Amino acid sequence: MRHGARRPPGPPKQFDTQRTLERARDLFWRRGFDGTGLSELEGELGVGRKSLYDTFGNKRALYLASLAHYGDSVIAAICDGLERPGASPLANLERVLGKLARHHASGESHGCLLGVGLAQVQRDDAEIVAALRRELARLEDAFERTLQRALDAGELRPNVRPRDSARQLVAFVQGMALLGRIADSPAVLPTAMSATLDGLRR
Amino acid sequence: MRHGARRPPGPPKQFDTQRTLERARDLFWRRGFDGTGLSELEGELGVGRKSLYDTFGNKRALYLASLAHYGDSVIAAICDGLERPGASPLANLERVLGKLARHHASGESHGCLLGVGLAQVQRDDAEIVAALRRELARLEDAFERTLQRALDAGELRPNVRPRDSARQLVAFVQGMALLGRIADSPAVLPTAMSATLDGLRR
Repeated sequence: MRHGARRPPGPPKQFDTQRTLERARDLFWRRGFDGTGLSELEGELGVGRKSLYDTFGNKRALYLASLAHYGDSVIAAICDGLERPGASPLANLERVLGKLARHHASGESHGCLLGVGLAQVQRDDAEIVAALRRELARLEDAFERTLQRALDAGELRPNVRPRDSARQLVAFVQGMALLGRIADSPAVLPTAMSATLDGLRR
Repeated sequence: MRHGARRPPGPPKQFDTQRTLERARDLFWRRGFDGTGLSELEGELGVGRKSLYDTFGNKRALYLASLAHYGDSVIAAICDGLERPGASPLANLERVLGKLARHHASGESHGCLLGVGLAQVQRDDAEIVAALRRELARLEDAFERTLQRALDAGELRPNVRPRDSARQLVAFVQGMALLGRIADSPAVLPTAMSATLDGLRR
């Protein structure tokens, strides 16, 4: 519920929680966990520190909520694209990967929130490590299912191992998201992507 | 020149510049540029702020020097491995990539200093972007030369394009370095690497 909207009696809700979470997610995406200060969050979100704490807990809790939101929005959309009905599994893979390559090469991309998180997380931070693993596993599983279907349909080299190539694609996509942040030509990532697909295709 | 060594008259050098630079590089590697504070640098390096400024300039200059040092040590060693005489080009590629996969999966890896930098750099920071591009281009060029030699030797699929696959490998290695920070099994990266090589091999 937005500030100022008519609302039933009860504790006042001063801001749109969902929209605030999206803005926090986008700030962490651009700046990383370490690079995002509380005062930056307050400024970007237009919400005071006390309200943030009351609604989300501390900065870490807001970050974990942002990771989960990213999984349910950005990662889920990629997974859905991989299973689009009416297209062959390989065609779905080519379309999704091509779109990612063009996006990350566009100069509009901030990389991947998960990759930015991976680059900063400390190994012994069990909570954030678990959250990152969960979202990456979702992506790996979706790649594996699509690769298995493409293999079954005879679209891939017969010796492709779907689980191994799914991991290959997760690593490749993460690397591409990183490199897109400094790519000096929009052709770099799509040609790299095309080379990766050539290695899978029958 | 080390502290305490006999030296000619002149301004006293209070610490080993090279060793200090390596320690700074390793701290940026583990913590990133944003995550590394001046007081952390002082503590880790055992050098006071004034000495650091006098020798390296500010934190940014120390970071740029760390990137160059990383290129001349870590990246240069990878490039040398790709051109080792007495082994076939594909064997060099397999050995170097296999070593990277095992290293990043070992739990000892901090990822890649360049990848950690990529995840944090702001697009409009021309100086750091240029430094990251320079070191990544060094790696891409070495991959391309090795792929071209392997192609000429008939070790690769005949339709492999060395420049495109070199970009593919840079992205893949960057992704692998990231994922190694949270991999829950030492098998994940070597199997992904093996899938990547299977896609290149004749």
